Amino acid sequence: MKISELSRRSGVSIPTIKYYLRDGLLPHGQVTATNQADYSEEHLRRLRLIRTLVEVRRLPVSAVKEILGAITEEGDLHQIFGIVLDARPATRHQKQARQEQTAGQDEAPGVADARKLITEMGWEVSSSTTAIQTLGAVLDALSAMDSDINWQSLLPYAQLTDRISELDVQQMNGVSGLLELAERAVLVSVLLEPALLALRRLAQEDKSARLFSGSRDEGGDI
Amino acid sequence: MKISELSRRSGVSIPTIKYYLRDGLLPHGQVTATNQADYSEEHLRRLRLIRTLVEVRRLPVSAVKEILGAITEEGDLHQIFGIVLDARPATRHQKQARQEQTAGQDEAPGVADARKLITEMGWEVSSSTTAIQTLGAVLDALSAMDSDINWQSLLPYAQLTDRISELDVQQMNGVSGLLELAERAVLVSVLLEPALLALRRLAQEDKSARLFSGSRDEGGDI
Repeated sequence: MKISELSRRSGVSIPTIKYYLRDGLLPHGQVTATNQADYSEEHLRRLRLIRTLVEVRRLPVSAVKEILGAITEEGDLHQIFGIVLDARPATRHQKQARQEQTAGQDEAPGVADARKLITEMGWEVSSSTTAIQTLGAVLDALSAMDSDINWQSLLPYAQLTDRISELDVQQMNGVSGLLELAERAVLVSVLLEPALLALRRLAQEDKSARLFSGSRDEGGDI
Repeated sequence: MKISELSRRSGVSIPTIKYYLRDGLLPHGQVTATNQADYSEEHLRRLRLIRTLVEVRRLPVSAVKEILGAITEEGDLHQIFGIVLDARPATRHQKQARQEQTAGQDEAPGVADARKLITEMGWEVSSSTTAIQTLGAVLDALSAMDSDINWQSLLPYAQLTDRISELDVQQMNGVSGLLELAERAVLVSVLLEPALLALRRLAQEDKSARLFSGSRDEGGDI
């Protein structure tokens, strides 16, 4: 297809496509005439993944290059999932955790509790997964607040998020091709995050209204 | 109690307490002698909430003042929940949504779908809740990506988040006093967010390993 059709079908503007071509994110098409090149469905798939990584994941071009390179090398969806998820910018908690580690300090007590929770759930995860640090930092923050919410209190949450993750992997059904799978992994893992938090917020407002509201109407504009 | 004990029990340094006193976030204690004041349990509770709002919610002092003022006025936990949750910094999606609205444009199609989901779930929420805009923006982004994930696909997620919100409100059990309830509302609604996303990430890695991994070991260092 011509670059104009590639642009139309991908939703990426021609100038942006040309930028990706110059930058090496997108391989050049087959030259058919002076100033004209032919682009394949593979170009389209790759361009859509680039668009998703840049627009949804807000990744710098350098990180997109890394991911595209890794996807081309790896044939394993589990690894693609990991690449896509781990490329995520570290949260404040994760940064704190890393600083503590680089400062050569011991693992925070919350991280040890996070590992207990993971064992209790029977989850097979890499011990270096940053999510363990995030979870540990939250548990540390809770105990610093003298809160009685601890890793055991999070078990029912873990059971529900386990079921959410089953829905997540179901979203990969019927998707074939590494680029499409990687794109879907980004959509499901990253783009759904604000949606899940928004759903929780809405459900909280509903429960809060039913359980705590003295008068429903006054809660109206919250 | 003396300011030294207030500091010890709240985990807030004396200079910070003095700053909060000067700034009016914390009412002055009862003067017992020159350069000495007596602080009550109420001071401690208020100080702990301030600490939570500043350290956990990362709110500016001005916003903390607003919340404390509102909590003192409102006697309704539903309203406190709303105050605490709505004081949240707007996400990119919410800002976009607001810009679109201020630009006088029509409601995005995703927002209409978000309202369908809310109706389907039977949730009683204010139509102005920003979470509706967030959810709508995600649905718009998904369709812009030509993804087949739509508001119906999110229903099973909504059912699980509904059960999560039931766990959330259970965390308020046995907590009494508006300041304590507000503090707990912040802990549960805000501090648990990164924990829930981390739990989902861990569960995803587990499912991904079980379902997609060619060889478990290679997934090791993801």
